[in-house]
Amino acid sequence: MNYKMRLSYDGTNYGGWAIQPNNTSIQELVQNGLKTILRTETPIVGSGRTDAGVHANAQVAHFSNEAEIDPPSLRYSLNSLLPPDIRILDINPVSDDFHARFSVKKKIYHYHLSLKEDPFNHRYSTYIHYSLDLELLEMALPLLTGTHDFSAFASSGCGSKNPVKTLYRLEMTPQNGGIRLEFEGDGFLYKMVRNVTGTLLEVGAHKRPLESLIQTLDSKDRTKAGKTAPPHALFLHHIKY
Amino acid sequence: MNYKMRLSYDGTNYGGWAIQPNNTSIQELVQNGLKTILRTETPIVGSGRTDAGVHANAQVAHFSNEAEIDPPSLRYSLNSLLPPDIRILDINPVSDDFHARFSVKKKIYHYHLSLKEDPFNHRYSTYIHYSLDLELLEMALPLLTGTHDFSAFASSGCGSKNPVKTLYRLEMTPQNGGIRLEFEGDGFLYKMVRNVTGTLLEVGAHKRPLESLIQTLDSKDRTKAGKTAPPHALFLHHIKY
Repeated sequence: MNYKMRLSYDGTNYGGWAIQPNNTSIQELVQNGLKTILRTETPIVGSGRTDAGVHANAQVAHFSNEAEIDPPSLRYSLNSLLPPDIRILDINPVSDDFHARFSVKKKIYHYHLSLKEDPFNHRYSTYIHYSLDLELLEMALPLLTGTHDFSAFASSGCGSKNPVKTLYRLEMTPQNGGIRLEFEGDGFLYKMVRNVTGTLLEVGAHKRPLESLIQTLDSKDRTKAGKTAPPHALFLHHIKY
Repeated sequence: MNYKMRLSYDGTNYGGWAIQPNNTSIQELVQNGLKTILRTETPIVGSGRTDAGVHANAQVAHFSNEAEIDPPSLRYSLNSLLPPDIRILDINPVSDDFHARFSVKKKIYHYHLSLKEDPFNHRYSTYIHYSLDLELLEMALPLLTGTHDFSAFASSGCGSKNPVKTLYRLEMTPQNGGIRLEFEGDGFLYKMVRNVTGTLLEVGAHKRPLESLIQTLDSKDRTKAGKTAPPHALFLHHIKY
């Protein structure tokens, strides 16, 4: 039987989603939990990687198991074994052709920017200590939405074969004392959300002209885009299948 | 000149407000910062202690300085030296008779209870994994408000001379997927908020009869009250002068 699992995690203490040497990953802890409970190696496949320090409101993974399992009991047992910064939201049986990565239709990421220093928020948002021109930022967003070759915003090490992605939505939403950038797309290149955010911040700080964004896209050259925004303010928010 | 300082902190990584051996305290870090900037030992007096792990939305402290200082610049410099989980909210000159502890009129504490597991909230709230009778809890609150000898709710080591305190307000407020207990009083005994919360939770879990709260108060005996609720969900919210 094939199962779909949704999980939420605070990525602060982890090396990222994917199993890796020298660092604890979320995938590793969940697989270890499944092995303990189901008494068999149970590989899980995530919708994609999240980098070190990046969070997830609802990451999705799938796994198969031959024996019959009761999803609510499995969820309860897994949550008992996992640390409190990783929580299984639900587990549901799905058809055999469901694949957490290949079946993805759209992904939504949120990037949190705070305009006020807050000791309870510093783990989850990037504090902007300079004056940010929000109107200018708002004008920049539509320049990047749509279907483009996003190579200029892909960090090296990107495994994606096709750099052409569709960004259906790129919006700014107020959020307690700051703003949230919402990205909805059919797929994202390596560190693309953080590279787009870093570049937008340079526009909002009047360090990069608004019009240059189009030339940056056209250049397909990573060196033409801005800095990579830090990971701790990025949330994999929702995945549509 | 006498100055009043308001500050907010995430207490997770500290041994509490007060300077202590073997553990980093918030008071120590702020005093070290003041010493660096003002080039003289500058003791600060807080409104009271907060225990290890307890947070503050707005702790208040006062300090004196002979030289003239510019409060906004001092705030900016202090925040540059302090870690991001301690933030100075503001610094203002006050009359010489202002004392952060002795001038307190009322203090407000919040205790956060979550009824849903959330990886982004586990540092700041106590997760209630059992069924909590919120109606019963609501009925218990007025039994403890008013002026009482709260000795039954004071942990040993309490330095307060007078165990009679007035709890003006004890309310329950919904807060993202849980509730917040709000305590407003003229003073609090050692660990009183956490001991009252632990006892109320036993009432809400049907482990302790509602009426017994009055006997518990009357007994003035700490062993008659409930467990001490954990510190990481407690916030010193506001101080009225």
